[in-house]
Amino acid sequence: MVKQRLQTKTGVRKLILSKTNPWKEGEALAKENKIAIEYLDPKKLDVLAQGNHQGALIEIDDFKVYTLQDILRDAKEDAILVLLDGMEDPHNLGAILRTADAAGIDGIILPKHRSVSLTPTVAKVSTGAIDTVKTAEVTNLNQAIHDLKKAGFWIYGTGMGKDAKDYRTVSYTGKIALVLGSEGFGISRLVKENCDFVVTLPMHGSVQSLNASVAAGILFYEVLNQRFPAK
Amino acid sequence: MVKQRLQTKTGVRKLILSKTNPWKEGEALAKENKIAIEYLDPKKLDVLAQGNHQGALIEIDDFKVYTLQDILRDAKEDAILVLLDGMEDPHNLGAILRTADAAGIDGIILPKHRSVSLTPTVAKVSTGAIDTVKTAEVTNLNQAIHDLKKAGFWIYGTGMGKDAKDYRTVSYTGKIALVLGSEGFGISRLVKENCDFVVTLPMHGSVQSLNASVAAGILFYEVLNQRFPAK
Repeated sequence: MVKQRLQTKTGVRKLILSKTNPWKEGEALAKENKIAIEYLDPKKLDVLAQGNHQGALIEIDDFKVYTLQDILRDAKEDAILVLLDGMEDPHNLGAILRTADAAGIDGIILPKHRSVSLTPTVAKVSTGAIDTVKTAEVTNLNQAIHDLKKAGFWIYGTGMGKDAKDYRTVSYTGKIALVLGSEGFGISRLVKENCDFVVTLPMHGSVQSLNASVAAGILFYEVLNQRFPAK
Repeated sequence: MVKQRLQTKTGVRKLILSKTNPWKEGEALAKENKIAIEYLDPKKLDVLAQGNHQGALIEIDDFKVYTLQDILRDAKEDAILVLLDGMEDPHNLGAILRTADAAGIDGIILPKHRSVSLTPTVAKVSTGAIDTVKTAEVTNLNQAIHDLKKAGFWIYGTGMGKDAKDYRTVSYTGKIALVLGSEGFGISRLVKENCDFVVTLPMHGSVQSLNASVAAGILFYEVLNQRFPAK
């Protein structure tokens, strides 16, 4: 985690090392990335880390949260964004961040209220993806959808019901935003009405839905499948 | 949960209802499925349930565990089995059971040692799939692979590495068994050597692997995609 943060520089204020036996690789990475280093007596390092360290500490900013405008400014012509409607479980958000990183998703958009936010649990479950996938918080998800449409995005909701199309029969070209609900497929009525398409996963058994991060992974990899077909 | 168990009859010994205000629907279901009913004073019901009930209790067997022979006996010509190598997290197993139910998987095979087994946490996360997807425990996973091959199964391992093929370029016809590791794609060397194919998921970001249940979902739905193409 320390090494990855030094490499990506995300929110790192300072690297703290032992005065008597500094971690050479970290020292080199910090110099390369112009990160300040502080050398401390090993006993002081123990106190600061409350005993639990491997010779190096970093002082970091809070998890960086972006605005929708930040994300729209950087959006390429094939950008993929993900909106999470009513997701409250930090494990689900962490797993979705991890999967989003693997799938090359450009950003995640969360409502400020009635939603999980970026916490240490999310960070841990994300296995580092909290630092690589941009997350924006918005006041109103439907307003965000409106802004995304104005910026040229197609909006894909997920749900059950008769009007939902098999997720493989829809084309995911250009700038797209995928809206996921708390239990994978299940978003609020108003949000669904604002979507250009509603897609669903075929279910062959007796459970009613999939875990949100599993459903997200299947959908993300179908988008990738269309954009980067297997050779 | 009580209603679903009454409907499927899985391991239900007895339905326990309030003497003064019995749950009519449960009473009818129990009679239909020839399940014994015991009527108790509401206060005794409270004590038995430790306060936490909605007027009905069921007495059940432990979660049913099958043998590999049970599963092989029932295997159809297009059976899909899943072997889990070194899975220790009950949340992952629960989510995999849930996804396996949705994907119509015929059975899960777990080693007896160094592996999670069927627990109340697994049951809860599986949202009922613990009762619908058969799970077998085996002493030795490599011996199980040997037996599966003799029974006509093709074995698909999952992993990274150069010799692994894109999961979409392999054909999943006939009887198949998918071997998943603890972190999605990552199985032990000997198990991998016993596989007929090793498949991998393309990774487009910086994380090294996906959550096991997410990777499982993506792979299961590719098998379904080949067997039941979108219309």
